[in-house]
Amino acid sequence: MYSEEAEAEEYESMANTHPIVGAASLPSPGPKPTDVRNVIMMVSDGFGPASETFARAYVEQSEKYPINYMSILDKILVGSSRTRSSDSFVTDSAPGAVCFASARKTYNTAIGVDDNTKPIGTNMEAAHRLGYKTGLVVKSYITDATPSAFAAHAATRQMMDLIAEQMGGLTNLGQNVDLMFGGGRCQFIGNSTKGSCRTDDRDVWGEMGKNGWSLMSTNDEFKSLTTSPKLPLMGLFDLGNIPYVMDYKINDVPTLPQMAKKAIDILAEASKDSSQGFYMMIEGSRIDHGGHDNDLGTHLKEILEYWETIKIVSDYIDEHPDTVMVSTSDHECGGLTLGRDNQYWVYPLVYSNQTMSQQVSCQNYLKLPVEKRGQYVTETMLPVHLGLSNVTAAKASVVLKATSQSSCLLAMSDALAVDANIMWTSLGHTGVDVNLYAKGKHTEELAGNHENTDIGMWLSKMLGVDLNDATERIKDVNVFQYPYTKPNSTYAFIPSLDYYHK
Amino acid sequence: MYSEEAEAEEYESMANTHPIVGAASLPSPGPKPTDVRNVIMMVSDGFGPASETFARAYVEQSEKYPINYMSILDKILVGSSRTRSSDSFVTDSAPGAVCFASARKTYNTAIGVDDNTKPIGTNMEAAHRLGYKTGLVVKSYITDATPSAFAAHAATRQMMDLIAEQMGGLTNLGQNVDLMFGGGRCQFIGNSTKGSCRTDDRDVWGEMGKNGWSLMSTNDEFKSLTTSPKLPLMGLFDLGNIPYVMDYKINDVPTLPQMAKKAIDILAEASKDSSQGFYMMIEGSRIDHGGHDNDLGTHLKEILEYWETIKIVSDYIDEHPDTVMVSTSDHECGGLTLGRDNQYWVYPLVYSNQTMSQQVSCQNYLKLPVEKRGQYVTETMLPVHLGLSNVTAAKASVVLKATSQSSCLLAMSDALAVDANIMWTSLGHTGVDVNLYAKGKHTEELAGNHENTDIGMWLSKMLGVDLNDATERIKDVNVFQYPYTKPNSTYAFIPSLDYYHK
Repeated sequence: MYSEEAEAEEYESMANTHPIVGAASLPSPGPKPTDVRNVIMMVSDGFGPASETFARAYVEQSEKYPINYMSILDKILVGSSRTRSSDSFVTDSAPGAVCFASARKTYNTAIGVDDNTKPIGTNMEAAHRLGYKTGLVVKSYITDATPSAFAAHAATRQMMDLIAEQMGGLTNLGQNVDLMFGGGRCQFIGNSTKGSCRTDDRDVWGEMGKNGWSLMSTNDEFKSLTTSPKLPLMGLFDLGNIPYVMDYKINDVPTLPQMAKKAIDILAEASKDSSQGFYMMIEGSRIDHGGHDNDLGTHLKEILEYWETIKIVSDYIDEHPDTVMVSTSDHECGGLTLGRDNQYWVYPLVYSNQTMSQQVSCQNYLKLPVEKRGQYVTETMLPVHLGLSNVTAAKASVVLKATSQSSCLLAMSDALAVDANIMWTSLGHTGVDVNLYAKGKHTEELAGNHENTDIGMWLSKMLGVDLNDATERIKDVNVFQYPYTKPNSTYAFIPSLDYYHK
Repeated sequence: MYSEEAEAEEYESMANTHPIVGAASLPSPGPKPTDVRNVIMMVSDGFGPASETFARAYVEQSEKYPINYMSILDKILVGSSRTRSSDSFVTDSAPGAVCFASARKTYNTAIGVDDNTKPIGTNMEAAHRLGYKTGLVVKSYITDATPSAFAAHAATRQMMDLIAEQMGGLTNLGQNVDLMFGGGRCQFIGNSTKGSCRTDDRDVWGEMGKNGWSLMSTNDEFKSLTTSPKLPLMGLFDLGNIPYVMDYKINDVPTLPQMAKKAIDILAEASKDSSQGFYMMIEGSRIDHGGHDNDLGTHLKEILEYWETIKIVSDYIDEHPDTVMVSTSDHECGGLTLGRDNQYWVYPLVYSNQTMSQQVSCQNYLKLPVEKRGQYVTETMLPVHLGLSNVTAAKASVVLKATSQSSCLLAMSDALAVDANIMWTSLGHTGVDVNLYAKGKHTEELAGNHENTDIGMWLSKMLGVDLNDATERIKDVNVFQYPYTKPNSTYAFIPSLDYYHK
């Protein structure tokens, strides 16, 4: 049993001083480097180590690359990040993102608040105050856990009405984000309007317009954007999540790399005459959703789109060496394993003919009257959506037993997973360390294994912001949308599959 | 879909030249650094990323360390290693170790041979020829896949009779290892003697003695070893595998850290007046076996013993900065996930009261007449061996249904895994990248993501050996114990659970 006395003493003293949980104030991250101007935080939500290995193998095999092919992420691996929250070994995305934004561990579901539900400042708020141009680019609801942890404060992530008001600059938090691209417009529309997902009738979108925001909701508007639009700017291109890559064909929306490229160009232009640069968080939000669905084909395509986005940022850094980037995940999702049942092989290309997310396929299936489902499963879902060449009666009958979205998703997942010889163990998150990637100056400080709070500290150092001051300035922000008692449990809230798909 | 044209061209050209599979000769690893004298390769067999996360959490919680506690491995993480073999995405230990020893991908089950079953030289053979003192320290059979890949050549790992003769210096391969500590003495004893596992009656042990080997088989002999025994020396302290840490109490054997410490001291002393230092491979062999058993308590204790061994090597490097160490795994084992069933928590301390490996517990159970098994399960196996405080009739009845070793192991595994909220997906290996750790000079060259063959190249560079020359010198070695046709399949050989436990 490993337990050296000296080691024990070292950690005993740390236990009294270590900064990441429940400390009154955070230590200084150290002086800002003078050679860093722009900072980009990339979050691959729900992207664990097995997912990177699988995506690399898929591309290597489908493109017939040699087996030592390196993905764009492989080339910039620097270490790993631990993911636990303050109250559970398995985090949800909210406290995961709080670690990046506020360098502090908090409880599952917490948005910009500490373990005692007190608001804590974020590096994005502090950077904005210093004069940085700030941005959030996501595929989820802009009020979802990861983006809101950078610019909102709520006792739980479910308080999305409040979060929308905060992010729209309508509370005493003020306006801290200059540019937001993503989904979830439903949260900004009063509930007397069709498509709203608010619990009240407040017209947040209209109020933001009156306060001077540039607002847009269509891909045509996005495409017509110049690099110098009037800021602040919010573009929410879907009432809900922006569709999966696998489902782009059914919507007209900008893709994640398109939004990221445009956002960088706009913020670079907006800050070009300023003494400060820009700070952005760009999220591959739906890598996680594909994991929650146990839909590896969809998960994979979201990962490949995230790689494409990394390429855009990476190219920008090559041209602008005063820009730094970190890329990591808040947690693994799905408990993906590359192998199962004592079989020593994996076939990634089983997923190469899938044409639709299992989520949308299952939604279509459940809308059909029962008598039409058989034909839909055997003629469309299995051969066309999953791209299965061997549609057997056995496989079809498993899907046909499904009477709910989650049972349909599991049946569809298994139809390919057995052939590929992969396995999932959960519809939720798991606790394995995730890969840490970085590019640019000073990223050698991120080498090795880190707490996720270290990443928040490093970002704060690159930005030259004071998180304690940021907390002091927002101490009067209301973090409650409704009466709330923080649960006294090891895991406060388990988001259900339906939660992720509304 | 990520597929840049330029990237495609880059990899197209690589496909014709990349060195790791099927190339006629390997490129030079580069000039040997003048400041490196001793090289230690540490192999944590079957130790995946989730296993390190779990072991750290277990120690942190049982020792009440803060959550940013760093294990001795966490402190030296430099990157990750890919694990696939030439013929499957999921490797077995044989080609995994060939990558470290010979820097070349080969097929599952291959020991020191290339994809065409031609013998290929190892860096240990080459180092010995240059004058290094060489050593192998393991807990498995010394003829098992990992150690034999450094000092033997066989078309499949099953040819252990041949491998024993080669490692004992009885073939035209010559004697290449100065010191071996481990298990598997049964392979060196003729099959007319009790305890033998040879298929013939050859007395390899006796022949080695006549050829000048120092031979030992007891812990008393081990304890009485000075730092300057007569070399070559072989100490095999068990007929089979050296017991799990969990089962040390039932045997009198040296532990892995004890063997590693003694081996380092002996090889350092033996090389002290030479222009060359020493080269060793030290393996935490049975981390893998705990994974094959899906026995997380046993897997954990093997990991903690491996950490202790790393500490010994690490301290040695602190005192001898001309020594370098790499530590990595050949593959993950078991498909361990830290979470399951959409539950957002994990309780590592569920494993804190386990007192016996599930392997030995199940062996004891199966030896009992059926009528005595009920009492044994409810009074001994569950409460004492697993340390379960809540022995329910339901849990007992699942174990009582077991009529084979593997069904018993799975039942015992589940009895704790559900409470801990962890899951296994296989009794075999999986394909996720594994963590790469290193300490000492020039280890910055190992930063980032690597093919496992890169590690073999780096070791060869540190040693200053020429692998092509090593191959040329052993081209006449016989690699066949019996008529053998290389299977034409994506996975040549799936070792069964029984294989690992003989």
